[in-house]
Amino acid sequence: MGSLDANPAAAFSAFAADGKAPFQPLNPEDVRAYLHKAVDFISDYYTNIESMPVLPNVKPGYLQGELGASPPTYSAPFDVSMKELRTSVVPGMTHWASPNFFAFFPSTNSAAAIAGDLIASAMNTVGFTWQASPAATEMEVLALDWLAQLLRLPTSFMNRTSSGRGTGGGVILGTTSEAMLVTLVAARDAALRRTGSVGVSGLPRLTVYAADQTHSTFFKACRLAGFDPAHIRSIPTGPETNYGLDPAKLFEVMQADVDAGLVPTYICATVGTTSSNAVDPVGAVADVAAMFNAWVHVDAAYAGSACICPEFRHHLDGVERVDSISMSPHKWLLTCLDCTCLYVRDAHRLSDSLETNPEYLKNDATDSGEVTDLKDMQVGVGRRFRGLKLWMVMRTYGTAKLQEHIRSDVAMAKMFEDFVRDDDRFEVVVPRNFALVCFRIKANGGMTEEDADEANRVLMDNLNKTGKAYLAHTVVGDRFVLRFAVGSSLQEERHVTSAWELIKKTTSEIMG
Amino acid sequence: MGSLDANPAAAFSAFAADGKAPFQPLNPEDVRAYLHKAVDFISDYYTNIESMPVLPNVKPGYLQGELGASPPTYSAPFDVSMKELRTSVVPGMTHWASPNFFAFFPSTNSAAAIAGDLIASAMNTVGFTWQASPAATEMEVLALDWLAQLLRLPTSFMNRTSSGRGTGGGVILGTTSEAMLVTLVAARDAALRRTGSVGVSGLPRLTVYAADQTHSTFFKACRLAGFDPAHIRSIPTGPETNYGLDPAKLFEVMQADVDAGLVPTYICATVGTTSSNAVDPVGAVADVAAMFNAWVHVDAAYAGSACICPEFRHHLDGVERVDSISMSPHKWLLTCLDCTCLYVRDAHRLSDSLETNPEYLKNDATDSGEVTDLKDMQVGVGRRFRGLKLWMVMRTYGTAKLQEHIRSDVAMAKMFEDFVRDDDRFEVVVPRNFALVCFRIKANGGMTEEDADEANRVLMDNLNKTGKAYLAHTVVGDRFVLRFAVGSSLQEERHVTSAWELIKKTTSEIMG
Repeated sequence: MGSLDANPAAAFSAFAADGKAPFQPLNPEDVRAYLHKAVDFISDYYTNIESMPVLPNVKPGYLQGELGASPPTYSAPFDVSMKELRTSVVPGMTHWASPNFFAFFPSTNSAAAIAGDLIASAMNTVGFTWQASPAATEMEVLALDWLAQLLRLPTSFMNRTSSGRGTGGGVILGTTSEAMLVTLVAARDAALRRTGSVGVSGLPRLTVYAADQTHSTFFKACRLAGFDPAHIRSIPTGPETNYGLDPAKLFEVMQADVDAGLVPTYICATVGTTSSNAVDPVGAVADVAAMFNAWVHVDAAYAGSACICPEFRHHLDGVERVDSISMSPHKWLLTCLDCTCLYVRDAHRLSDSLETNPEYLKNDATDSGEVTDLKDMQVGVGRRFRGLKLWMVMRTYGTAKLQEHIRSDVAMAKMFEDFVRDDDRFEVVVPRNFALVCFRIKANGGMTEEDADEANRVLMDNLNKTGKAYLAHTVVGDRFVLRFAVGSSLQEERHVTSAWELIKKTTSEIMG
Repeated sequence: MGSLDANPAAAFSAFAADGKAPFQPLNPEDVRAYLHKAVDFISDYYTNIESMPVLPNVKPGYLQGELGASPPTYSAPFDVSMKELRTSVVPGMTHWASPNFFAFFPSTNSAAAIAGDLIASAMNTVGFTWQASPAATEMEVLALDWLAQLLRLPTSFMNRTSSGRGTGGGVILGTTSEAMLVTLVAARDAALRRTGSVGVSGLPRLTVYAADQTHSTFFKACRLAGFDPAHIRSIPTGPETNYGLDPAKLFEVMQADVDAGLVPTYICATVGTTSSNAVDPVGAVADVAAMFNAWVHVDAAYAGSACICPEFRHHLDGVERVDSISMSPHKWLLTCLDCTCLYVRDAHRLSDSLETNPEYLKNDATDSGEVTDLKDMQVGVGRRFRGLKLWMVMRTYGTAKLQEHIRSDVAMAKMFEDFVRDDDRFEVVVPRNFALVCFRIKANGGMTEEDADEANRVLMDNLNKTGKAYLAHTVVGDRFVLRFAVGSSLQEERHVTSAWELIKKTTSEIMG
């Protein structure tokens, strides 16, 4: 809706003085000019973001009202797009990059990651096979192997060890859901083969398992892969295990299924649940799974990043006995979306289910068996050059700074936890494992638990309406609980302290 | 492996003079400095790319040898990452952005798209629900509705029309494979409900259909969704339909399945196949599907972009009768990876299968029913702010320039086709529909067809080894065929002409 639309001749002149030169969408000087403008916007955005409301106040459909219901016929100078970005888009954003963002999990980020992602967008390579862009595959494999070492994963998960190419391997996917889906499919197909199923006739007998705290996307991934919704077992958890999976209960349910003629196929164990950061005991789950020949996947989307610090690594104990693990550097390892790292102990178990081999992708490198074609470890064929940003993060910052980053966030969360514990109007609902604090206004005095639920709901709404903080909630043990997730990449102690002051003040207003 | 690794103190000083200041991964001045360096790299890359070999000459594992098998402990100045990018990564890339790239389909790109993607990486918003970032969802919906108008899709596919919110909708996904998968799952679940299946017990009876020229990822998506591999029908095509799907044959196969007690569930029609750009007749396929209550999906990943020009729009005739259509601006609409647009006529048919509603994502906007939560139209939960780049492309260039871009590519392809037709050593194997020319050395004189196959294979290998052009091949009608795909965004007529000169010269060397 830039005014230039009314003046096509002027708009065209943005590209060529006479309006007749050929259109050059990647003219290097235009690229340089547009991108420098974008960079300056970003740097200003980070500088000013603290003063912007974290949550916007806009109505559904507002953007169409501002930008128009139909596309422009004629071109406009790039400045018009940038102006509309500033005036119409930014005010409608929930600012995940704000240091006052404490909702969900932070999407952490860094200068090195953004630079790597930018270069990937510009190279725009599509690395479906090794040959389609050797360096893209090599870089992804290298970055994953580096990260495996940061996490002290066993070499069985690595693509390439000091003794050469292994049987394990990794791939960078878009989401944890995709990691679950592709491993579910591999496990499903293995179970069908094992049980002598004709085609998918045995599918209705397969069963899958996870704690009731597991991310809802697991249930969705199971349904996508064709598992019977009635055979997705949700194992109850409670405060006695801090909402982690009880291996004895898991065994009982699996054995009952076997007794009923069903086929236990897959277990998802979570290290750091979304709701409250509960941790399922990886090794014990793997031991139970082994009795039933079931696939074990570890979802460490958020907390996996913490395991680069020795003091948190014990949460992965037993990982050498699982089949696959995924974690997302786009959550807590300073790498912008999207970047979910999936490791499998036997890459062939994935590619057996996911391989395609059309004529136009046949090439000598693939035929040699010496290379990994990453399309065979994911849903799609096309793929961004995601390895570059992950490598740039590790290369630029180094292990020591990445550990410092984790520890700094955990220290801030601990500080907040201490604030909460020192104020007797509040309670910490579950022990803090990482950088998420689950807390609530306690049922004090004449308040019932239901009254407290309502008070917490009002507290959250009132906090979020200020624009000075954004918190999300969950339900733990039937109680409405506030989640305070520390770690947005621009966050400093003072933001945590200010948020706590705001929480105290808002609580006084509600309770008074 | 930068030399600074040996000198941790110096490396730390890249971040703070005393090595003790807190680590600030998003320090706005660092962001500005890193990104400006990246931008200059990109501009230089585009300026020099023409002289780089399109296909690299590197061995599997080469990058580990250059960058090291283990991650560095200490940080290094960003210049070290940039230097290693230049010296170790760039020489191992297949340069999809090169104007001498004629393989697969080009991954077209533009200054506006890269800028939009960069800003998305920096904002790093995760728009799973509308509330999680209103502008991100609003922008995606707006960009999709604009594109729908460029494609003259019926309003039934739009999110928001002049008369308000419709029942249709769109979503930007990572790949066509994901678009196929989610629509397959929706169609699968609808067929199971329709046939009174208990759980997934009816799944082994469901059947799906596509022409034998359909992308292999369709067969993979069907397997992911749990369809029986034996019930994925591949309908033979031949030169009599230029390798497009014959609706009469489709009807026969579907009727035979019904007669055998099976349940036709889903048909994939392609507009512009990867192999040879064949076009399945959309309207006629929809008419057959209607007789069996089967879902019709149109895969227009590549050629959909051409349909923004009136002279190509007829390839979508009948689209108002299909259930879903996907096309990928990351292929031919100047938008960098990843950007696949999926439109469905009834958004609820998708979300019925893909919806999740965990406690921590509950919010008033969702409860109001007034907004779209895009997580319910895709595999995962998390999602990049992909709408921004697509909007920036349409906003900056306008419909007229985008049409000029398509026409210019088609004109260059036509020029190449004329070159081939004018040289009697060659033949054009199928009529050119868009900007892909399928051609081969003919079996002349004493050559058998098998000899010609081998000559073409040698021609391709020799061309690709020069580094001055990169072509891929396919097999059409049992013959080895070269694919010349025009349209890389830096490409001009002179590159097509040079490639043709190189093809002629190399052919003379082989044939002589």
